[in-house]
Amino acid sequence: MSLLVVGSVAFDTVKTPFGEADEVLGGSATYFSTAASYFTGVNLVAVIGEDFPEKHITFLKSRKIDVTGLQRSPGKTFRWKGEYGYDLNEARTLETHLNVFETFKPQVPEQYRNADVVFLANIDPVLQREVLHQIEKPKLVACDTMNFWIEGKKDELIKTLREVDILLINEAEARQLAGVPNLVKAAKIIQGMGPETLIIKQGEYGSLMFHSDGVFSAPAFPLESVFDPTGAGDSFAGGFMGYLANLNNFSESTLRQAMIFGSVMASFNVEDFSLNRMKSLDYKEIQARFREFKRLTHFEDIKEHGGMV
Amino acid sequence: MSLLVVGSVAFDTVKTPFGEADEVLGGSATYFSTAASYFTGVNLVAVIGEDFPEKHITFLKSRKIDVTGLQRSPGKTFRWKGEYGYDLNEARTLETHLNVFETFKPQVPEQYRNADVVFLANIDPVLQREVLHQIEKPKLVACDTMNFWIEGKKDELIKTLREVDILLINEAEARQLAGVPNLVKAAKIIQGMGPETLIIKQGEYGSLMFHSDGVFSAPAFPLESVFDPTGAGDSFAGGFMGYLANLNNFSESTLRQAMIFGSVMASFNVEDFSLNRMKSLDYKEIQARFREFKRLTHFEDIKEHGGMV
Repeated sequence: MSLLVVGSVAFDTVKTPFGEADEVLGGSATYFSTAASYFTGVNLVAVIGEDFPEKHITFLKSRKIDVTGLQRSPGKTFRWKGEYGYDLNEARTLETHLNVFETFKPQVPEQYRNADVVFLANIDPVLQREVLHQIEKPKLVACDTMNFWIEGKKDELIKTLREVDILLINEAEARQLAGVPNLVKAAKIIQGMGPETLIIKQGEYGSLMFHSDGVFSAPAFPLESVFDPTGAGDSFAGGFMGYLANLNNFSESTLRQAMIFGSVMASFNVEDFSLNRMKSLDYKEIQARFREFKRLTHFEDIKEHGGMV
Repeated sequence: MSLLVVGSVAFDTVKTPFGEADEVLGGSATYFSTAASYFTGVNLVAVIGEDFPEKHITFLKSRKIDVTGLQRSPGKTFRWKGEYGYDLNEARTLETHLNVFETFKPQVPEQYRNADVVFLANIDPVLQREVLHQIEKPKLVACDTMNFWIEGKKDELIKTLREVDILLINEAEARQLAGVPNLVKAAKIIQGMGPETLIIKQGEYGSLMFHSDGVFSAPAFPLESVFDPTGAGDSFAGGFMGYLANLNNFSESTLRQAMIFGSVMASFNVEDFSLNRMKSLDYKEIQARFREFKRLTHFEDIKEHGGMV
């Protein structure tokens, strides 16, 4: 089943307590597409500048990502510079240069317009809707957003959410969007804005899915070395949406498995800078880690009066 | 199987964004015993002052908690005053009056000395050892501790840990004790100090168990209203140890179930001030919530080549 993503392609300069990376390949759509490409074909809509080297395009193509929708515009590619302390949950942004991303008008190529599954990565909610309205009849629409849009374009974001089936955001953003500190209450409020399903990302603590059929808690994988958290959320979304698109099944039970595949892809991604770890992945490793998640969370059920005095 | 706990019995004055409670029954041993009492008989070792009212002792007895080891000393009962903000994960201590707890010399009554399962709640590690050495031949020893002892009596704490099978601490304390930020590395270091099993409590994010046979992640229960987190960790420990003592089985599989029962008891406890919610609990509610944890964490396994392109 066809999966379309719109988002950013960027160069990241990242410093963590464990090392530094200078102008490496990044961006929400890049992480998303690469993670999703292990499960399904991906159609990419994004913008790059004149300085974007061919080798990165070759890499994306090698992952069977369709780059027809990757527009090249005059100017420089989007750049982000940030650093992390030992608390790897939060990046401190040092510099943001939108460059060609500032005037990005996403054009969905003709051959992408019958997309079944759509992911609107974290961009202006007005652009998210513009992309969505170029798709003929999507079966499943998910989106991401961030505090910047919740603060600056809340009305536009709420309009976008009316047309979205699944929202993926982090817990601080969920609290901010709903205006309440309790996550269960926040989820109900956000579901009332449109999305039947809300996925709340909690960084190293995993993620929660609120769905009309119930709540699901997915842990993060306990890793001995987290090298660079950049792109974890987008890799999660890529694994999650890629698995759903591949199965063409959006039942609650499949959404739960997809959450685990998202967690698997995020857990690999943070093991190295940029997309380095995802570049060297194979399916067997992904399946093996899925099963490790199973072992990580499994416990036996109790009998009728088990364990009580 | 007999379960012995040594810890504090206190009066707490607590303020949360949702209300206040003045001089209510609290203390680590109180929360622990009450939670554990739903699974097994409990022998309590603690100290109270002359001001401790008979009604609280009547309550403990009504839960089949043996209070032979509850010494009454001249002076006042231990008092703690604290408050929580909307981030309910951390209490701000406003006042601590140790009172009779300051000179507490735990005496294990003769009839408790054949205890099989022992929980050393968060008290001076020297006292923890003194209690332990009064027990003839415990089969399972678990303990809690806090930053105060890690900072002030680390050598004594490390001596205690050599004699302990299971350590339960929160994640900041685990990092502090091991001296490394990564929890997986911290767990290995702490296991090297003695405990085969380390349980790291992560408040509203649940808990992790590091055991020689593997890692287990237990979520916290997503509650729509968390009223007062005081005693959550001790209620967790009570459910955990109570279940183990009842089953007289300490296999990794049983430890995983015990983690869930611990999470169940903690989730009930935070729904009201003091022990109010635990006072009105019945077994059916505990079992029902255990099954809700099962639904919360369940996902289907994948087939050999499931979901991959």
